[in-house]
Amino acid sequence: MIEFPKPTVDQFFRTYVITNFAVSSDEERLIFSSNLNGKMNLWAMNLPDTFPYLFAQKDESCSFIKFDPQNRYVLAGFDQDGDENHHIYAIPNEGGIPQALISGDAAEKYFFTDVSNDGERIYYMTSEENPSFLNTRVRNLANGTDTLLNTGEVSPTELAAVSNKEDAFVYIRAFANTYVIGFVKTGDEQHSLTPDPDEVHITFDPIFIDDNTIYFITDYESEYSYIAKFDLASKQFSPVVNVNDESIQSLKWNKEKNAFYFITEDGVQDKLYQYDLASQDIQELSAPVDVIDQIQVANSGNLYVLGRSATIPHNIFQSSDGVEWKQLTNNRVLGLTKEDMVEPDVISYQSFDGMEMEALLFRAKPENDNGYTIFWPHGGPQASERKMFRAMFQCFLNRGYTIFAPNFRGSTGYGSSFVKLVEQDWGEGPRLDCVAGIEWLFENHITDREKLFLVGGSYGGYMALLLHGRHSDYFKAVVDIFGPSDLFTFVNSVPPHWKPIMERWLGDPERDKERFIKDSPVTYLDGMVKPMLVIQGAKDPRVVKEESDQIVAKLNDEGRDVEYLVLEDEGHGFSKKENEIKVYTRMLDFLEKHQA
Amino acid sequence: MIEFPKPTVDQFFRTYVITNFAVSSDEERLIFSSNLNGKMNLWAMNLPDTFPYLFAQKDESCSFIKFDPQNRYVLAGFDQDGDENHHIYAIPNEGGIPQALISGDAAEKYFFTDVSNDGERIYYMTSEENPSFLNTRVRNLANGTDTLLNTGEVSPTELAAVSNKEDAFVYIRAFANTYVIGFVKTGDEQHSLTPDPDEVHITFDPIFIDDNTIYFITDYESEYSYIAKFDLASKQFSPVVNVNDESIQSLKWNKEKNAFYFITEDGVQDKLYQYDLASQDIQELSAPVDVIDQIQVANSGNLYVLGRSATIPHNIFQSSDGVEWKQLTNNRVLGLTKEDMVEPDVISYQSFDGMEMEALLFRAKPENDNGYTIFWPHGGPQASERKMFRAMFQCFLNRGYTIFAPNFRGSTGYGSSFVKLVEQDWGEGPRLDCVAGIEWLFENHITDREKLFLVGGSYGGYMALLLHGRHSDYFKAVVDIFGPSDLFTFVNSVPPHWKPIMERWLGDPERDKERFIKDSPVTYLDGMVKPMLVIQGAKDPRVVKEESDQIVAKLNDEGRDVEYLVLEDEGHGFSKKENEIKVYTRMLDFLEKHQA
Repeated sequence: MIEFPKPTVDQFFRTYVITNFAVSSDEERLIFSSNLNGKMNLWAMNLPDTFPYLFAQKDESCSFIKFDPQNRYVLAGFDQDGDENHHIYAIPNEGGIPQALISGDAAEKYFFTDVSNDGERIYYMTSEENPSFLNTRVRNLANGTDTLLNTGEVSPTELAAVSNKEDAFVYIRAFANTYVIGFVKTGDEQHSLTPDPDEVHITFDPIFIDDNTIYFITDYESEYSYIAKFDLASKQFSPVVNVNDESIQSLKWNKEKNAFYFITEDGVQDKLYQYDLASQDIQELSAPVDVIDQIQVANSGNLYVLGRSATIPHNIFQSSDGVEWKQLTNNRVLGLTKEDMVEPDVISYQSFDGMEMEALLFRAKPENDNGYTIFWPHGGPQASERKMFRAMFQCFLNRGYTIFAPNFRGSTGYGSSFVKLVEQDWGEGPRLDCVAGIEWLFENHITDREKLFLVGGSYGGYMALLLHGRHSDYFKAVVDIFGPSDLFTFVNSVPPHWKPIMERWLGDPERDKERFIKDSPVTYLDGMVKPMLVIQGAKDPRVVKEESDQIVAKLNDEGRDVEYLVLEDEGHGFSKKENEIKVYTRMLDFLEKHQA
Repeated sequence: MIEFPKPTVDQFFRTYVITNFAVSSDEERLIFSSNLNGKMNLWAMNLPDTFPYLFAQKDESCSFIKFDPQNRYVLAGFDQDGDENHHIYAIPNEGGIPQALISGDAAEKYFFTDVSNDGERIYYMTSEENPSFLNTRVRNLANGTDTLLNTGEVSPTELAAVSNKEDAFVYIRAFANTYVIGFVKTGDEQHSLTPDPDEVHITFDPIFIDDNTIYFITDYESEYSYIAKFDLASKQFSPVVNVNDESIQSLKWNKEKNAFYFITEDGVQDKLYQYDLASQDIQELSAPVDVIDQIQVANSGNLYVLGRSATIPHNIFQSSDGVEWKQLTNNRVLGLTKEDMVEPDVISYQSFDGMEMEALLFRAKPENDNGYTIFWPHGGPQASERKMFRAMFQCFLNRGYTIFAPNFRGSTGYGSSFVKLVEQDWGEGPRLDCVAGIEWLFENHITDREKLFLVGGSYGGYMALLLHGRHSDYFKAVVDIFGPSDLFTFVNSVPPHWKPIMERWLGDPERDKERFIKDSPVTYLDGMVKPMLVIQGAKDPRVVKEESDQIVAKLNDEGRDVEYLVLEDEGHGFSKKENEIKVYTRMLDFLEKHQA
């Protein structure tokens, strides 16, 4: 009777992100960070009521939310326009404007670890006086003192857990994404949590379950990360729980239930488990979404999960048993149901060397299909493309584009060895995995050879540039979102506390000069002959603006067809609704223009 | 332990407005219009869940929301940047982008009245071809026809009710705010709802409770409006219910309960009643707020109320019995509790001629008090200042200003005669009531003679200009928000369908030339010697921008201290969060500057 047109771009970008949340100990209040009103702010709900109210106005991205255990204030971390220089702010218990509490020069960083049970001592790390390795300090709110607790050495060193008596401290030290050691300090003593810190492995999420026992996650001598424990009295390390071929993540402890809760990473989706310490039973719970961003276990045992699925934007869920879930938030795509959107197929293909690659294939619905495919190499690279809502993807799909996103070597979720394959090999193996994926698309008649676009961000932007430079025949046009264009400049432009991990991750520009040349997109400038759109946040601290400036300048010098969009108040991502809409509208216009 | 500063301006302006709402017949969905995300859009909640989701993105003010009785679409009216040229839009049942449905030239108006039970015929009025008196039409969605039902004559004529069989129609015709007649048309017959349409009285909210019986509100031969009925068979008028010294407003009918629900206006606050038709019992219900903006009664008898109190911003409440209320929304002032804000005292004082005037006195809390008072003549003028949240007021109060808001003659809520006292006397009686109020403030030692500011909007802006011109000694500085400055230009610049009502309301510029001169602020230009801030929305259709332009230009010519702030995308009010913050920050700065 009334005919309505197809959904517009705008509808997909009216979803918001929920980046993190916290629940008060009495479970009467839940606070979450979201750009619900256009910019990132904190919102609260007084449970069981769920209507959200503005809790803290800051218009900036939030790195953590922590309730004072005594409910006198709330702590939160904010940076500025995406510069990732987070400072620690306090907000009155009734809400308000965040006040800088642990803060200093705008260029310094202040990372929160923990607050004491009486709410008087705040443990944090800072780049102040130690930008590469970080210092750990404790701020005493009662007497105003601020004391140095640990000087970071060798590599970035973070305080990761504080014992109940505040006399034992677990630090983790990162040499790479795949090499993070943990050690516990008590007085003058220091012990590695794992038997041999010289072995390459990771250690994270340490928890003191009593004064002498630390549980944590590690992949020490294993392909998949598992739960281990360290006994402070006996100095004994022992593996506790593993889940076959699934990497354990996000360990949480519930004292009342004497149980751990954890997530496992199983390829493109997550699973949720409960581990009963007394019975040693592992029970898989039913997760309300495919990808879990955050989990909190209340004292009562109630579970709170923030997550998303391919067709479900960020939402927060609550459950008393891990089986039945109540959706507390209602973040949805304006005017669309799950059924109007596309769930990906999980496919696998053989790469150049016979290795199996998993990929997500989002097929445009027949009624929308425009015949074109977007090839999407994910960022990270030590991350993966997963079954998680991206407004951009669902919008592309609605416009008729099929999307192919391979988890090339270096991706997480497929074991420790696989992740390490990208280290010191940014441009060869993963690139050939992408090429094999492209050929798979053609062989399986999913994509016409004349109808392929290339879009990627961060490492995916780097890969887009590199694939463009070396395999331009494949693509009609290319979109690079803050991708490094020159590994020589990139390796020196990352934040100071990233530099120590560059060696293992990327390599050394002098020792590995030949490889850096071979793997730098700028080397293949001559090959970049297809139309290109480059998008960059001016405040990006990870891939600085110069990485995009220089490739755009060089392409312009060569007279290539290149468009350049710079967002002045964004970093490595687009947090502000207006910017997000600007970016994706521009991308859609660019792709449409180059379909001809 | 952590000291937090006083609330900032920004905190007060992070509340939002909720202008109207609708509940679906099955009560499974509630849709409301709000600037929750910065601009006016429609939000929905799937009851009993209350977490709101964006239902329609339009970024414009909404005049009505109506569910298709068959749940295939939702209708809503939107204007453009506050121009009040509302058009009728359709939105898919699952939400989306509103599509113009009954619409035309941007300068035309389309006002919704009703939709048939099958959802196929939409009754509406339009300025098209009849800008002064309006035509009534019916759009048939099934066959696409659009038929003229009534040609407005004599004065603006609106369709106000349609019988169930769609064969009888009640129209109301306005000659003034205080003179609105109602008549019912069936075929070629036409009957006045009240015995004598030539008597000055008002008629509104007609409801067909069956094919032959129309209930409505009128003040025919009474100081206070009451419920009356008209029998179509016998053509009999009969009064039904009155509430002593309270004017009945917003009549709602519930068939299942055989009961009416209505609000009464009792001076500065509202009351809520239920009237049982069978027993003729009137029961006062407990209203959740002091001022009710909208009430809806579901088929089940559940009540939904949108309203506010002095310290409670717009919120929506639900009740099954009119006693216990559940607050569905949670609109609050960021970081403040009710106790942090100020409830007004209701005071009364004698005016120049002995007449009693009621006024709201908001006293700054001692810890905030800056010694200054803001005198606030309300807009309308046939309206009143009531116990309703104004972010502006609570922010002024928090900054230490006391606020005095008199309900001078012409205000509503004090009987029909009192309202009429402003008609054809805009500048004398009400002005002297204001002067008496100012003297009362001095006499009662509430305000120092040297510490009074004057702020008003719309008619209140006119009064601010006039008081400034004629009594400038009273004031330190003056803020005029879209106030008419010259009655000769104003009377000709109002929207066409307002012109027929200007005669009784304001008068005739030729016949009443002397009075127009006497009552025009511009006449007293020489007296306007205090610093002034003038604020105007460029799209304002009620008090056009020229009204502010001309007074600012003349003051500038005289070398007076005048600041001028124009909002390009606003009308008679400030609907966009950014504009609101800009306006009120500017006002606060202006007042602070002129405290010295």
